[in-house]
Amino acid sequence: MDLSALFDLSYGVYVVSSMDGDRPTGCIANSAMQITAEPPTLAVSINHDNFTHGCIEKTGRFSLSILPETIAPLTIGRFGFRSGRDNDKFDGVDYQMVDGLPVLSESTSYCLFEVTDKMETETHTIFLARLLDAQKAAGGKPMTYSYYHQVIKGKAPKTAPTYQPPAK
Amino acid sequence: MDLSALFDLSYGVYVVSSMDGDRPTGCIANSAMQITAEPPTLAVSINHDNFTHGCIEKTGRFSLSILPETIAPLTIGRFGFRSGRDNDKFDGVDYQMVDGLPVLSESTSYCLFEVTDKMETETHTIFLARLLDAQKAAGGKPMTYSYYHQVIKGKAPKTAPTYQPPAK
Repeated sequence: MDLSALFDLSYGVYVVSSMDGDRPTGCIANSAMQITAEPPTLAVSINHDNFTHGCIEKTGRFSLSILPETIAPLTIGRFGFRSGRDNDKFDGVDYQMVDGLPVLSESTSYCLFEVTDKMETETHTIFLARLLDAQKAAGGKPMTYSYYHQVIKGKAPKTAPTYQPPAK
Repeated sequence: MDLSALFDLSYGVYVVSSMDGDRPTGCIANSAMQITAEPPTLAVSINHDNFTHGCIEKTGRFSLSILPETIAPLTIGRFGFRSGRDNDKFDGVDYQMVDGLPVLSESTSYCLFEVTDKMETETHTIFLARLLDAQKAAGGKPMTYSYYHQVIKGKAPKTAPTYQPPAK
């Protein structure tokens, strides 16, 4: 068994956001994929330990901000490293509220979803969700997970306290 | 609503294979993602109409061949266009049987899976599956779905009878 074979799977890099009451929060996610075209449906996998997980469970709604290659590594670190439990992750981030959900202004595009079903695993929940809205935002080239690892990782300052690869 | 926003999601290009009795069969899939690290678990979305769908339902096992950028467009057409119901898709394809499942020799890496759970939608089943084995194969750069659309589509002969973009 050579687990590095799994590194050949391709992903994007996204910020999945939801609301903690009136407070927007979010986390980095790589595991998101469209499931059906009609109606447009997506599946996203979120770790039970992510604060955002509980917010999605409670509200049944989340947004997906698709990150561009030009996103600041510190923005990825902000959403990927710190916990939304103790931090207002959107503080200092350029974002807008759309239909009650936060989306990053720097996203190439964003989508809003309503949870319709879920499947549990030991560590992650796979949320199945119906598309409520989808819009082009800042445009640009969507970042892939391999681009993030190969290009961004090398350029980001290792001393940056918020810098860390996003959790898979 | 601008559904083209969904095109900014990133995917790989894979051949998902299973067995129809003693006969190997498979189809093109883009929607595959790792869900948990321990134990290694993957989710893959397969259309109900795909012949491979029924074979996975019956056998509870499938393989994932990760396609390289250098894969012949005709190979993608072979698995993406024709139905395994009426065609031996692996005829003329360089493949090997590993633990009873077919994998493409040209794959960068391949993984073998056992289904542990599933979630239904109107058109697709999301199979949750435990990793049985993972191995590096021919290596090379894994093909992304956007590479396939931007690079391969332009180069493939439009007259090729088997050529067609893989179904999402």
